[in-house]
Amino acid sequence: MKIDSVDFFYVAMPEVTTAADGSQDALVVRVSAGGHVGWGECEAAPLPSIAAFVCPMSHGACRPVSASVLGAKLDSPDDIRRMAATVAYDSMDLLQAAHTWSGIEMALWDILGKARGVPAWKLLGYERAYPKLPYASVLFGGSPQQTLDRAKEIRSRGFRAAKFGWAPFGESLAGDIAQLDAAREGLGPDGILLIDAGQIFGEDVEAAAARLDAMERNRVTFFEEPFHGSAYGAYAGLAERLRTVRSAGGEAAHSRHMAEHLIDYGRVGYIQIDCGRIGGLWPAKQVADYAVQRGVTYINHTFTSNLALSASLQPFAGLEEHRICEFPTGLQQLAVDLTLDHIVPDENGEINAPDAPGLGIEVDPAALAKYRVDVEITIGGRTVFATPTP
Amino acid sequence: MKIDSVDFFYVAMPEVTTAADGSQDALVVRVSAGGHVGWGECEAAPLPSIAAFVCPMSHGACRPVSASVLGAKLDSPDDIRRMAATVAYDSMDLLQAAHTWSGIEMALWDILGKARGVPAWKLLGYERAYPKLPYASVLFGGSPQQTLDRAKEIRSRGFRAAKFGWAPFGESLAGDIAQLDAAREGLGPDGILLIDAGQIFGEDVEAAAARLDAMERNRVTFFEEPFHGSAYGAYAGLAERLRTVRSAGGEAAHSRHMAEHLIDYGRVGYIQIDCGRIGGLWPAKQVADYAVQRGVTYINHTFTSNLALSASLQPFAGLEEHRICEFPTGLQQLAVDLTLDHIVPDENGEINAPDAPGLGIEVDPAALAKYRVDVEITIGGRTVFATPTP
Repeated sequence: MKIDSVDFFYVAMPEVTTAADGSQDALVVRVSAGGHVGWGECEAAPLPSIAAFVCPMSHGACRPVSASVLGAKLDSPDDIRRMAATVAYDSMDLLQAAHTWSGIEMALWDILGKARGVPAWKLLGYERAYPKLPYASVLFGGSPQQTLDRAKEIRSRGFRAAKFGWAPFGESLAGDIAQLDAAREGLGPDGILLIDAGQIFGEDVEAAAARLDAMERNRVTFFEEPFHGSAYGAYAGLAERLRTVRSAGGEAAHSRHMAEHLIDYGRVGYIQIDCGRIGGLWPAKQVADYAVQRGVTYINHTFTSNLALSASLQPFAGLEEHRICEFPTGLQQLAVDLTLDHIVPDENGEINAPDAPGLGIEVDPAALAKYRVDVEITIGGRTVFATPTP
Repeated sequence: MKIDSVDFFYVAMPEVTTAADGSQDALVVRVSAGGHVGWGECEAAPLPSIAAFVCPMSHGACRPVSASVLGAKLDSPDDIRRMAATVAYDSMDLLQAAHTWSGIEMALWDILGKARGVPAWKLLGYERAYPKLPYASVLFGGSPQQTLDRAKEIRSRGFRAAKFGWAPFGESLAGDIAQLDAAREGLGPDGILLIDAGQIFGEDVEAAAARLDAMERNRVTFFEEPFHGSAYGAYAGLAERLRTVRSAGGEAAHSRHMAEHLIDYGRVGYIQIDCGRIGGLWPAKQVADYAVQRGVTYINHTFTSNLALSASLQPFAGLEEHRICEFPTGLQQLAVDLTLDHIVPDENGEINAPDAPGLGIEVDPAALAKYRVDVEITIGGRTVFATPTP
């Protein structure tokens, strides 16, 4: 097969707010090769990601992502790995390239799986996919009472695990303690409780450590992104202070190296990978292998559609011991409507990577039309990008 | 002062080739505040960098760079640092943001220096600027003979140091040895010889180490970017093998952390910072302070105009012991024409950061017009970017 076309669809809710809710817009990628169509999703700012595909070359080490993809051969996983290496080298000075490539790379596994009639996780080398225990991933309520209600609601829907994140967490120690107590109370004594600080402590180890007593008392399993994603020193400093709680991070990793560094230097207990940022499924699988080797738990980062969720499940689908997975439950309607297939918990409250060819998630063209954000980019009077037909 | 406007000018040579020559295009930034005009340059792909400024918000942690800049207060260095922190937090999921912000940040120091009538290096805390010994920074010739000629020519122009880089280096061991011998011969026995491998060895420590004998024999001072910019493990592996040669890297760092990691984990002897990528002058100054503390030599990375060169000299202008600096000598005409002021070696063959307000380099509006690449971006029928009037 040869890659015939790569189309980007920028979709958004009519109103986008400052909430830390990544499902308010999406950049969906459609790739065609050999008569097959594959889908992927960049977890990224749509316009700069499109620009990284269509921009003119600046020089040999700053070429658009399109230069490594269009017309390339696609017959095996090696072809995907080769393309990834070309993007990494020929676009090394194009910072946004990793985010753009991530959505394309997913679509390539989707195509390859469809062409061979096997799930992507099989192509990645797994014999079988094990069920995962999903945690409902939501934002903290504006008040402890709202968080309590949100936690109760999650529990009533049968979830055994939940993650609460972002503002107002970090605004005051007393407020945070009240939020932690509320989340535990609402979730009940047996629920797995996870906390996401959304990098609010910058590099301030003491500020993050001040929350540990309340986290231990509330039996928090992991404390996610207390710091800037690259502040390995701060992560390592906090690691010294941890007793029962583990640290987690990695969602910002835009290369395999960055995730491995967070394991080696930041000493996280959970490594969280977003396939829509790290460069797709293959670097994520490499991180999963590395996590196993280093005794760290791999986990997906997903806050967008079920297409992104399926992609993010593939790299650790075959790791039975790596049990929990992120499962966004407060998605905007756009992210729900985007896919014809949905991943839902089974009677055991568990979810599975689709046992279907490729990623096993079809995109709804009607949603691409309904939520479309029309973009046109012209350079020197020539149109280099216009929103394609769904 | 309040930031009134930020304008981006995308300029390019009529023909852009795959040579690793970053001076074939440029993204120049003009910022207006309080009646002053400041100039900066992103060392970045122009279109994605513009897009990162004008794109719609995706969510609270993926806002365009413009949201942190337009209308912001600019009265002191603290205001620049505050803006940098806002960009880092509010645009944490917008990968390209660091490159976009870098050019803006330079322009802010330029404005502040002009408003106070002092050079940017004084605002960064230096009492005086020390002369630097420039190394001519060029690409390897296609053959050893061409490299020999190039080195002789550099020497005849009075340079005491030169760096040769990129392809065909890395293609074969015998070829590389011939190139190294040619560079040394052409430069003469006393010249400082530097080598830039342009990441060609990926993570292959053995391949890089195989060049060390020839480098030692040719008294190479540093061996730059043998590996992928984030392959700290490979850098550390090579560090074990180094005797007289030191390793160098860091140009890809798009945050202060990444540069510090390369020092701490990669054990480089020279840390090379491009102010057009790392987020401007301030994070670069922090890296310079850190380098001093860790016994590592700070050096600029510059392969574009003299505006970028001035910006890149500021963060280590006051470090007398950090002597050599990169000085691109094979610039495309665009990069020469871009500025009205030029930094040229004095009678001692040394260069100085301008002793003039701000960055001390004025941009030529005629060059912005002559080399302009017209860009228009519309979203939902509304123009969010159109090339401004120079």
